[in-house]
Amino acid sequence: MVTRVSILGATGSVGRSTADILVAHRDRFAVEAVAGGRDAPALADMAKRLGARFAAISDERALPELRACLGGTGIAAAGGEGAVMEAALRPADIVVASIVGAAGVRPTHAAVQAGRTVALANKESLVCAGAAFMRDARAGGATLLPLDSEHNAIFQALGRHRPDEIEQMVITASGGPFRTWPAGRIATARREEALAHPNWSMGAKITIDSASLMNKGLELIEAHHLFGVSPERLGVVVHPQSIVHGLVSFSDGSVVAGLALPDMRVPIAHCLGFPERLGTSARRLDLASIARLDFEAPDLARFPALRLAMEALEAGAGAPTVLNAANEVAVAAFLGGRLRFGDMAPLCEAMLDRFGEARDSGVLDSVEAALALDAEVRRAAEALVPAALKSAH
Amino acid sequence: MVTRVSILGATGSVGRSTADILVAHRDRFAVEAVAGGRDAPALADMAKRLGARFAAISDERALPELRACLGGTGIAAAGGEGAVMEAALRPADIVVASIVGAAGVRPTHAAVQAGRTVALANKESLVCAGAAFMRDARAGGATLLPLDSEHNAIFQALGRHRPDEIEQMVITASGGPFRTWPAGRIATARREEALAHPNWSMGAKITIDSASLMNKGLELIEAHHLFGVSPERLGVVVHPQSIVHGLVSFSDGSVVAGLALPDMRVPIAHCLGFPERLGTSARRLDLASIARLDFEAPDLARFPALRLAMEALEAGAGAPTVLNAANEVAVAAFLGGRLRFGDMAPLCEAMLDRFGEARDSGVLDSVEAALALDAEVRRAAEALVPAALKSAH
Repeated sequence: MVTRVSILGATGSVGRSTADILVAHRDRFAVEAVAGGRDAPALADMAKRLGARFAAISDERALPELRACLGGTGIAAAGGEGAVMEAALRPADIVVASIVGAAGVRPTHAAVQAGRTVALANKESLVCAGAAFMRDARAGGATLLPLDSEHNAIFQALGRHRPDEIEQMVITASGGPFRTWPAGRIATARREEALAHPNWSMGAKITIDSASLMNKGLELIEAHHLFGVSPERLGVVVHPQSIVHGLVSFSDGSVVAGLALPDMRVPIAHCLGFPERLGTSARRLDLASIARLDFEAPDLARFPALRLAMEALEAGAGAPTVLNAANEVAVAAFLGGRLRFGDMAPLCEAMLDRFGEARDSGVLDSVEAALALDAEVRRAAEALVPAALKSAH
Repeated sequence: MVTRVSILGATGSVGRSTADILVAHRDRFAVEAVAGGRDAPALADMAKRLGARFAAISDERALPELRACLGGTGIAAAGGEGAVMEAALRPADIVVASIVGAAGVRPTHAAVQAGRTVALANKESLVCAGAAFMRDARAGGATLLPLDSEHNAIFQALGRHRPDEIEQMVITASGGPFRTWPAGRIATARREEALAHPNWSMGAKITIDSASLMNKGLELIEAHHLFGVSPERLGVVVHPQSIVHGLVSFSDGSVVAGLALPDMRVPIAHCLGFPERLGTSARRLDLASIARLDFEAPDLARFPALRLAMEALEAGAGAPTVLNAANEVAVAAFLGGRLRFGDMAPLCEAMLDRFGEARDSGVLDSVEAALALDAEVRRAAEALVPAALKSAH
């Protein structure tokens, strides 16, 4: 039986790895829709390579170019947010939700409301709008398969167990490129230094978040919603080799862990094959040749982003929404040379303080309410970002 | 609902840890029978502590003392092999099969033939008589719960998966006290040196087997029968900290591992609580405080016992039976000062050569046939052991 797949965020890092898996198993999969941001030639290539029936480009201005690239292929094309929503809602057995950032929330939400099986890489759906998103996913009858390597590892480690049987759930952090740096050097780290992740090749946003450990904080919030585990039972351990991705502990003292070499094709293949296993050509883990795995506690003083995320998780309500929006602005400003690395966390903290009322207003009651708060925080955060740094960046 | 438990091998290391768990959960368990070898006072204490209804001592000469110790308690007592069989067959929801060595095969076999749920620590049932034992367990409708820490870890890591979905199954070895020793020094290691296991406190037989890595070889054979995994998909990695106990790898590149601090209460509690989880006071794993896990390939030249076991696993039929019997004689002779450490593997290899015909005669067709071969090999091996070492031991 052929499994129909749609990919939201097809031209990104996860989308490209997904395509590799689908191409390697052409007999098992058919691609319904692919959606991308603004790179029309890349999206057209992906649509042709996968034999998709429909290609949606978020930036409508790129639609003429997409149409031109797809000329004669018979692949339908459309542009704008509505087109991405159509891609999310076309009939498919699995929707891979890998659009980066808050832009991915609405289409991912639409897919879960429609009861789809969603392989979830868009963590903002859970960080920005977690409670409402999960409620609507349950109401829609959706199945969520965690695609992030950490959550996928936890999902595999859980096996037959219900999350309420878990004593502790720990995700690992590589520690990023600044793991051993002193605080002062981290504060003034250059763009290229922050983008030099030791283990993973990923998009720019998540790579910066990995350098600040904000990514790990967002993943804690994601795990809380995805697995229904309370904040005090969630933890992070720094593990520079990125081999062990997540661990679950039980009341008898047993721990089950998910491991793999750092390669996104592994969790993607797990989601696409679930509950069966798909073969991949991913390199196999050989512990004897790896020889050594290291673990250390995260340093919340040098990595204040992780502390802020833990506090936002604990505070609940709109706090994760505020944090996520402020952080997206901060990362874009850092990448654009308008903010120093060490200024990102203070900007997030200022927004958490400013929007204290929204934080305490109870769990946001809809995804749209969360997105409205997200937009408001973005505007406020943007207003605090200088047009340019005074000294050379 | 109260779970009725019987413990075969109640006065040994596993039996005592089992008692600790049962006492901590008195409301959930009732003890039907306890069986021990020859230590009447220890068995009587255990029976009284657990409120058992029946105590069986294997050595009939110790029965009067057992009766005296149990006077006035109302706990029934019996002696001899038949009494141990009665302990195995009394109605119980779980039989903990933790008699050490080939002596545990018949009572464990009786329990699985009767369709009991058996928490299996007696690895000889699988090493000496694997194929017939498993066939009879299936026919009897028995459920086997692996109690060895390595197999229990694998069992937990398997989760929902069937063993035929596994690409590789790896158990870890601490490497024992001689992990870093040169071959010459290992060959003449003293009894006290071999008994000084770095991580585990266990009985003498298994501790010597851990020093020679024969234990790990026997565990590979055990895993083969228990999980139905072919020899070429089974492996060993040396891991001095004994934190990761077993790993299963899948075709997508995912690996799921079972971890715990080295404490037998963890796998015992897992078996006694299965499929739920029992709380234990076992110390919890904290990877950040452990800081480092090391892995290395086993050295089959310095540890020929592991090579012999791998060869016996590959050869199948009676080879594991021969190896196990020869090894039990060798270990007893080493512990008794009649054999050097480095003479144990050659004795096993000589027996594997001598009983080549039995090895190749096809899978032994009954547990009794395996035990007959076991007895024959023991006699032959004993005849090769000198009465005393010539030089000082």
